Amino acid sequence: MTNPFFKKKNNVKINDILVTLNLKKQKKNDRVNDIKELETASKNDITFFNSFKYKEKIKKTKSKLIITNIKFRNFIPKRIKIIEVENVLLSVAKITSLFYPKSIEDIPDFNLMNIDKKKYSKPQFGTNILIGKNVKIGTNCVIGHNTIIEQNVHIGNNCNIGNNVIIKNTFIGNNTNILDGAIIGKKGFGFFPGKKRNIRYPHIGAVIVGNNVEIGCNNTIDRGSLSNTVIGDGTFLDNQVHIAHNVKIGKNCIITGQVGFAGSSTIGNRVMIGGQAGISGHLTIGDNVHIGGGSGVINNIPSNTKVMGYPAKNIRKFIKEQKANE
Amino acid sequence: MTNPFFKKKNNVKINDILVTLNLKKQKKNDRVNDIKELETASKNDITFFNSFKYKEKIKKTKSKLIITNIKFRNFIPKRIKIIEVENVLLSVAKITSLFYPKSIEDIPDFNLMNIDKKKYSKPQFGTNILIGKNVKIGTNCVIGHNTIIEQNVHIGNNCNIGNNVIIKNTFIGNNTNILDGAIIGKKGFGFFPGKKRNIRYPHIGAVIVGNNVEIGCNNTIDRGSLSNTVIGDGTFLDNQVHIAHNVKIGKNCIITGQVGFAGSSTIGNRVMIGGQAGISGHLTIGDNVHIGGGSGVINNIPSNTKVMGYPAKNIRKFIKEQKANE
Amino acid sequence: MTNPFFKKKNNVKINDILVTLNLKKQKKNDRVNDIKELETASKNDITFFNSFKYKEKIKKTKSKLIITNIKFRNFIPKRIKIIEVENVLLSVAKITSLFYPKSIEDIPDFNLMNIDKKKYSKPQFGTNILIGKNVKIGTNCVIGHNTIIEQNVHIGNNCNIGNNVIIKNTFIGNNTNILDGAIIGKKGFGFFPGKKRNIRYPHIGAVIVGNNVEIGCNNTIDRGSLSNTVIGDGTFLDNQVHIAHNVKIGKNCIITGQVGFAGSSTIGNRVMIGGQAGISGHLTIGDNVHIGGGSGVINNIPSNTKVMGYPAKNIRKFIKEQKANE
Repeated sequence: MTNPFFKKKNNVKINDILVTLNLKKQKKNDRVNDIKELETASKNDITFFNSFKYKEKIKKTKSKLIITNIKFRNFIPKRIKIIEVENVLLSVAKITSLFYPKSIEDIPDFNLMNIDKKKYSKPQFGTNILIGKNVKIGTNCVIGHNTIIEQNVHIGNNCNIGNNVIIKNTFIGNNTNILDGAIIGKKGFGFFPGKKRNIRYPHIGAVIVGNNVEIGCNNTIDRGSLSNTVIGDGTFLDNQVHIAHNVKIGKNCIITGQVGFAGSSTIGNRVMIGGQAGISGHLTIGDNVHIGGGSGVINNIPSNTKVMGYPAKNIRKFIKEQKANE
Repeated sequence: MTNPFFKKKNNVKINDILVTLNLKKQKKNDRVNDIKELETASKNDITFFNSFKYKEKIKKTKSKLIITNIKFRNFIPKRIKIIEVENVLLSVAKITSLFYPKSIEDIPDFNLMNIDKKKYSKPQFGTNILIGKNVKIGTNCVIGHNTIIEQNVHIGNNCNIGNNVIIKNTFIGNNTNILDGAIIGKKGFGFFPGKKRNIRYPHIGAVIVGNNVEIGCNNTIDRGSLSNTVIGDGTFLDNQVHIAHNVKIGKNCIITGQVGFAGSSTIGNRVMIGGQAGISGHLTIGDNVHIGGGSGVINNIPSNTKVMGYPAKNIRKFIKEQKANE
Repeated sequence: MTNPFFKKKNNVKINDILVTLNLKKQKKNDRVNDIKELETASKNDITFFNSFKYKEKIKKTKSKLIITNIKFRNFIPKRIKIIEVENVLLSVAKITSLFYPKSIEDIPDFNLMNIDKKKYSKPQFGTNILIGKNVKIGTNCVIGHNTIIEQNVHIGNNCNIGNNVIIKNTFIGNNTNILDGAIIGKKGFGFFPGKKRNIRYPHIGAVIVGNNVEIGCNNTIDRGSLSNTVIGDGTFLDNQVHIAHNVKIGKNCIITGQVGFAGSSTIGNRVMIGGQAGISGHLTIGDNVHIGGGSGVINNIPSNTKVMGYPAKNIRKFIKEQKANE
């Protein structure tokens, strides 16, 4: 499930895509349904290929129309029609904006209203709360003072949302706590440096927060671009944690203060991360991994491993090197 | 002084404790007054022993009833009755919750009222301020806009509290500044990972902020669990500093931006810490220590020492190694 | 341009300066216009010299009156009258306060009013916005909920200011976005540790934010002391970035999450900085520099260089050392 609330344009034709990419028109008026990643695209969706890492996935995609660069040409099965571009991701950004024209704007929501306490079951609501469109709040929830819940937020039952919290484009399970000052669901920090002005990467993903989760004070959690940002059941985040777009954190993880995640990394279950550690982008961290405080993780980490250091390495190696240094 | 405002249950009997720990009843109806650490417990309090580090302290405790594990059995003086458990800290958490049933809840305070400016002497108060129960504010104080002072806060004279600040369970001296967006006094990030749901560690401590202190923008300072979190007189904290539960910082320290402290470390007087440094938990840092920016401190540091590096080491050693590396 | 709004005292005489510094009076009633840095001082301004690094600049200053220490005496051209002090920067702080008595106070602005939407052209304003004195807002601007714009803020056209933002003493160009929870324009973290109480360094600078800039959620950007803090055109800052006083960042830079800058460093154009990196104070970073995530930069970096590590070094050297270590 990505964010079902971003309004999609429904009459996009191949020619519209070619025009958007400044390619010559070919009078192809076949309709294209949506833009999706290789594994989720269906036969009427356009997809894209921009890394050798995905050469197994391309074989299985259902899509029949793909954006790619000439250097990947030989990886594309013959059944798939190719739109050849210079910069794949920039083209994907443009086509995503074509389908989802509102996905780049991220201005404050001006459809907010004061909360109608009668609408909700057994709530405890503070003062000066503002609630936007497409917001659902379950039973027995608590919402603190000055909190702003913008459009497209579903909150489960028995949740506790603190003071000065800002949330949008986010799905929250049951029994979850969001502490004071957390900001959840804004667009991620993805864009293409432009000569005149940077071009934003569209963000049509949501933030999916599981059950029994705790999100600490002043955390910032960005929503995903084409997929979602996910915080698994039972995971606890301490204060001042930053989670970039598309990051997927598993279940029952413990993430301590000031940890930061760059975009699109996947973290397993029961992972423990010490304070101020940083996780680079596009990594895979296994289950039961322990990452020492202050570590800088720049490589994948297999399950059941303890690492520490900058760059992070096996903790026995780290300790050995420290001792050798003394 | 821990937080005097957490309401303590007064009729706790030994049998209640045994029931809470799933131990068999022994018809012991002696009353127990409170749960305290070894040095502060009096003869009617229950205490606990969970580390060889405290083997000197156990000799002097006034308590006559102790929670411990079988492996520490021989350290406990014969005059003290033992309740033997598998996991000492988990049991302490459960018994603390038995005495202080409200110490784990940390939902927004719904007893807040708009400030009654007439009650205070020479104040300057912004708009949309909310004030909870057991709040005292001294003379000549300034409180900014949208600031929320929840229950159990005492503020001295001539203090300056900024905008969008959230405070609870905190005692503040005189002439102290709390800058915009700081969040002070929530429960710490302490809990026991559970299979179904994590079990929170109770936090009955307060945050004690001294005189002439400055707390920077967007700082997060958690209250203590069984003891307090302390910021000493004259200490200045820059923006985005994170201080976990039970940390005790001395006087006239200078802590620059984005520094983080894990739980229960003790910092001396006149300590200077450079930006983004991290201090691990349960450490003792002496007086006049200088910690270089970006350092990761994982060992105790004696007084009058300069350290740098990750892990932090004597700065002369650090510089020597860097030069050897060139 | 420094902040034109700090009110300057106009009748300061040399004797007032000597009295402030506890130096003996010499019946010198010549007026002094202002206190400025070497390159910006004109003939009626007092300036200061406190580092051999500035020995070229001192030759060109137009000032005829200088605060310095005896050890720098021989660098000062004969045409300049010297006021000799023990601690140059402390004396500068005192004299700056003499000229700008309001530059140290930084309490919340109590002249705020609810925004008068009729005054502005095509705005979209949220609820509970407060606006101070000397605030100008251009056409087509958006301002989110609960945002506080204190005194001395100019905002250009087509800007997007989020929710819970706090701004003062700041000049913002056109097409710039300030995201939720950012705090911009407070005084920097500069002061002299005092026995009784720390002495604040005065901050008469502003924050100058260019065109097409994006400032992330929960960023903290302090205003300058004697010069300004500057964020150049087209530069994007991710969430939880901290920028200290006097930092000058060039154009089209990309600064990712949780990066921190200590005071007075200058960053070139098109610089890219990875997450959690830290930049020490008083450094010069060239154009097109890439700084890896988690790096600690403690030396100047020439243009067109890629660095990584703690301390940061050329990335080829960093990789080589990592490999040698394996």
